[in-house]
Amino acid sequence: MTSYLNRRDVQFMLYELLDAQKLPERAPYADHSRETFDDTLTLAQSLAEKYFAPHNREADLNEPHVVDGKVAIIPQVKEALEAFRKAGFFGAHHAYDLGGMQLPGVVFQAAQAHFQAANVSTSAYPFLTIGNANLIAAFGSEAQKTKYLPKLISGEWFGTMALSEPQAGSSLADILTTATPLDDGRFLISGTKMWISGGEHELSENIVHLVLARIKDAPKGVKGISLFIVPRSRVNDDGSLGERNDVNLGGLLHKMGYRGTTSTVLNFGENGACLGELVGEPNKGLTYMFHMMNEARIGVGMGATMLGYAGYLYSLEYAKTRPQGRKASNKDPLSEQRMIVEHADVKRMLLMQKAYVEGAFALGLYLASLVDDQRTHPDEAKRREAGLLLDILTPIMKAWPSDFCLEANKQAIQILGGYGYTREYPVEQYYRDNRLNPIHEGTNGIQGLDLLGRKVTMENGAAFKLLARELQASIDEAFAVPDVELFAGELADALRVVRQTTGDMLGQAGEAGPDVFLANASLYLEMLGHTVIAWMWLRQATVAAKALGSASEADQDFYRGKLQACRYFYRFDLPKVKPLGDLLRTLDRTTYEMQPQWF
Amino acid sequence: MTSYLNRRDVQFMLYELLDAQKLPERAPYADHSRETFDDTLTLAQSLAEKYFAPHNREADLNEPHVVDGKVAIIPQVKEALEAFRKAGFFGAHHAYDLGGMQLPGVVFQAAQAHFQAANVSTSAYPFLTIGNANLIAAFGSEAQKTKYLPKLISGEWFGTMALSEPQAGSSLADILTTATPLDDGRFLISGTKMWISGGEHELSENIVHLVLARIKDAPKGVKGISLFIVPRSRVNDDGSLGERNDVNLGGLLHKMGYRGTTSTVLNFGENGACLGELVGEPNKGLTYMFHMMNEARIGVGMGATMLGYAGYLYSLEYAKTRPQGRKASNKDPLSEQRMIVEHADVKRMLLMQKAYVEGAFALGLYLASLVDDQRTHPDEAKRREAGLLLDILTPIMKAWPSDFCLEANKQAIQILGGYGYTREYPVEQYYRDNRLNPIHEGTNGIQGLDLLGRKVTMENGAAFKLLARELQASIDEAFAVPDVELFAGELADALRVVRQTTGDMLGQAGEAGPDVFLANASLYLEMLGHTVIAWMWLRQATVAAKALGSASEADQDFYRGKLQACRYFYRFDLPKVKPLGDLLRTLDRTTYEMQPQWF
Repeated sequence: MTSYLNRRDVQFMLYELLDAQKLPERAPYADHSRETFDDTLTLAQSLAEKYFAPHNREADLNEPHVVDGKVAIIPQVKEALEAFRKAGFFGAHHAYDLGGMQLPGVVFQAAQAHFQAANVSTSAYPFLTIGNANLIAAFGSEAQKTKYLPKLISGEWFGTMALSEPQAGSSLADILTTATPLDDGRFLISGTKMWISGGEHELSENIVHLVLARIKDAPKGVKGISLFIVPRSRVNDDGSLGERNDVNLGGLLHKMGYRGTTSTVLNFGENGACLGELVGEPNKGLTYMFHMMNEARIGVGMGATMLGYAGYLYSLEYAKTRPQGRKASNKDPLSEQRMIVEHADVKRMLLMQKAYVEGAFALGLYLASLVDDQRTHPDEAKRREAGLLLDILTPIMKAWPSDFCLEANKQAIQILGGYGYTREYPVEQYYRDNRLNPIHEGTNGIQGLDLLGRKVTMENGAAFKLLARELQASIDEAFAVPDVELFAGELADALRVVRQTTGDMLGQAGEAGPDVFLANASLYLEMLGHTVIAWMWLRQATVAAKALGSASEADQDFYRGKLQACRYFYRFDLPKVKPLGDLLRTLDRTTYEMQPQWF
Repeated sequence: MTSYLNRRDVQFMLYELLDAQKLPERAPYADHSRETFDDTLTLAQSLAEKYFAPHNREADLNEPHVVDGKVAIIPQVKEALEAFRKAGFFGAHHAYDLGGMQLPGVVFQAAQAHFQAANVSTSAYPFLTIGNANLIAAFGSEAQKTKYLPKLISGEWFGTMALSEPQAGSSLADILTTATPLDDGRFLISGTKMWISGGEHELSENIVHLVLARIKDAPKGVKGISLFIVPRSRVNDDGSLGERNDVNLGGLLHKMGYRGTTSTVLNFGENGACLGELVGEPNKGLTYMFHMMNEARIGVGMGATMLGYAGYLYSLEYAKTRPQGRKASNKDPLSEQRMIVEHADVKRMLLMQKAYVEGAFALGLYLASLVDDQRTHPDEAKRREAGLLLDILTPIMKAWPSDFCLEANKQAIQILGGYGYTREYPVEQYYRDNRLNPIHEGTNGIQGLDLLGRKVTMENGAAFKLLARELQASIDEAFAVPDVELFAGELADALRVVRQTTGDMLGQAGEAGPDVFLANASLYLEMLGHTVIAWMWLRQATVAAKALGSASEADQDFYRGKLQACRYFYRFDLPKVKPLGDLLRTLDRTTYEMQPQWF
């Protein structure tokens, strides 16, 4: 066990909860086995420990800054990414013919989790590069794939997503960057992008930006946005580096946390010489970008989860070794003090963290396994179902962990008390780092709108109904297991609330109109999110309850912990679903009717 | 209106909610009037604007550090405190014969709120000094009052509270600092104190530490702790400064936020020459200190509230001027974007902040008015009642705002999005600063234990019963006011839950034992805290509803805002009381039964 991720829990998720050991039965993963998966995880764990964790604080204290026009970053970041690169982690999930290892996504995600837990800021560079390469692999032309993919998959070049502009963040419909077609099929790009993570640095030979822009005379709004590959250094057709493109650093942003990841303002074409290549068809840029964004959103949720996880384990270790106070029933001041892990209120704060981070971790890996199913499940119907579940669960995976694992980080500080509030301990940094996650890759408010306004109703409610059936299947299974039968009943109640609430809301949607229908979308996400996390806990608890009887002593402790964390979530958190349903069901207009001048 | 506190709201609280204009009817305040109160507030507002707010960020960026053995602090802090001092704010609430102005506490607190909202870190120095002087005024000998009070009340000397030690924070029973009696009645103090805010600096001529220590052979535990005045520079009987005492800086603590306030490790008597004077009787130190701590706890809650308030107003202003996106029902991308204050989800985040910060502000000023009642109400029964209400409400005022106004700060960042996460905007600092408040002056976990383990049951439940009667009186009044009658019914329901839950818990307390009874004390505080804040909102809404009919247009907007924030709290937050009651009522053992090895 490292200090920031519990390897036993990773094994539990992969092999007891998600049956990853069966994936090699599928053709693409035939060369793999549980051994190769475990070797991958062990390698990730050791690289994360050796190269990522040690500079997590130093990267926070010495954020990227400009020296002689270049972005200077502490050297440990480059060393860590070089080790990551050499181990093949930039493209381990890609096909052999692209230079990858055809590793299942769920194992790849579990491996990445070690890096995120050890150092979320340094992990962001490969995280963005991987998403970038995935997009080019999915939508790029053959020529583009030949030019860009090998270097991105090898990790020699890094990638970014360049969507937002100073005046357009949540509303991408309003971006102003333009693309002017040239006779040779390329485009001249012109505009300013902001909040571009990894936008400028000396960590890689080249930086491949994926840029949203409008082609002249394109339709207004989201239907007129196209996607372009815009490398910092131009790339010749044979893949070699050409001259510098007209992409220039406009400035660095100075953040509260996540400081190791450089965040930039980039000027494209300020000298009229920024060349870009169109990806796919004109005006379909947002569709392509959403392909990457969905992955990125799951990744953001996983990053939030791993920050929560790291804080949980740190505060647990602290609580086990810090003596302070006595039982309320012990009035003898001469008696030894207890370790604070013995205090019920500290156990509450630890159980809360455990319930949030392990619940979110289970969801994140489950979504990764759905990505695998969508791509490689032998049954076509299952592939389609996996896609539907991914659609409806992605906004939840983005938003729920970024809210509740941030809350977990808040509790970690609280357990350390004054010490936790100082910069000598890592928990305050986790808290600052994690505060970014509810904001980027679509604010959590945007996720709520996506969930309620699009995903719940898509294909005549197909995704929602499927999700409900999946929950029901887990409930039915759990009803047959004595130790978790009670939880099954409670999840059934919650599911009933969710179904009824959703039905009631949809029934009034036509008359009320979309503005009222969506007014409380954030709370809808919280209601469904809590229900989904409870589902993840029911599934974990069912596995634990079944395994408990024949488990080793150490495993018995582990399984009892799973059962108790499930109990915590069901007693302390799941009951919030009902009042949320009561509020939502009536399409409460409190926020909608508030007038700006009344504030 | 400044950018961090709404003066109209201050007027509302003082004169419409709390009837402060009637205080001059009481003898001690006879020289005052609403005009003198308003003049005081205007002075506070202008000094806060001119001297406190401008260096709030700079003090964060340049935290106190040691230069040549001295603690260096940016000069603006000293200038601000000098202006504060000259205006008489160190002692405005003290009696004339002590050099004060006999200002009612509620007006004094409202004046302080301006400084806290403008710059919580700089405000901490006078905040601690004022509490220190109040304690000496209450429990010091005549000689000690003569020696120390004039300089503390004039603000020439500053004060601290020196309670915690590296190994003893929440458990003061375990402090190790010793006091050895000398023949002349003084004591030699020896030990190390930690987390001492304002413990060392060059801002004042002297620093008067109030130190907890054990006299040799004192009983173990809390009953053997005494309180000492230990000045950094010794003080001659005539009040002039003597030689330096043996109090030395052990180090500075580097915090996540609240950086402008120096936090220190102090070594007392490392050269065997630290002289201290006993306050009051031996072994009664904690009792005296609690006098100061209760004030400090209300002050911490007010600080948390004002940080929330400042973030609320900043994000409101931003939301009114940031265009982004359109109505969900508006599909025309050519149409103008809306200001984000028009989006329901942004209004939700603003209403949440308004409900939390104005609810907490009302409670803080109400508690200040209870301090006035306790001291100066002509009716002895009312004085006693005020004391009881203070006892039971103090842990709530400490903990609730420090949790929920921190949550407000989180929302303020969210409204600013990526901008809010950068250090170019003030909201991220408010969030970092506010994270201290659930920790210091007794963690929020300790507040829960104090509330449920002591205050609810004290004097056979007298404080709890009185509080319930006070709520009932407001409910009865509100039932007669059409616009708030619905809220009255909902608060009555919540009060019923609180009463029943408390009764059920107490009924099982004997059999279950104190450890089980107190296991979920933090949730009990949340349940009662939410109910109390709902009460504050019912009172505000009742005033607003009554005033609405004959109000000016601007005031109508203000009152409608009060009513809508009340509605928000009752719809979105108060429903959490019922599930909390359900959990507490059964003395849920989930946390109690969790075993350390299961984590």
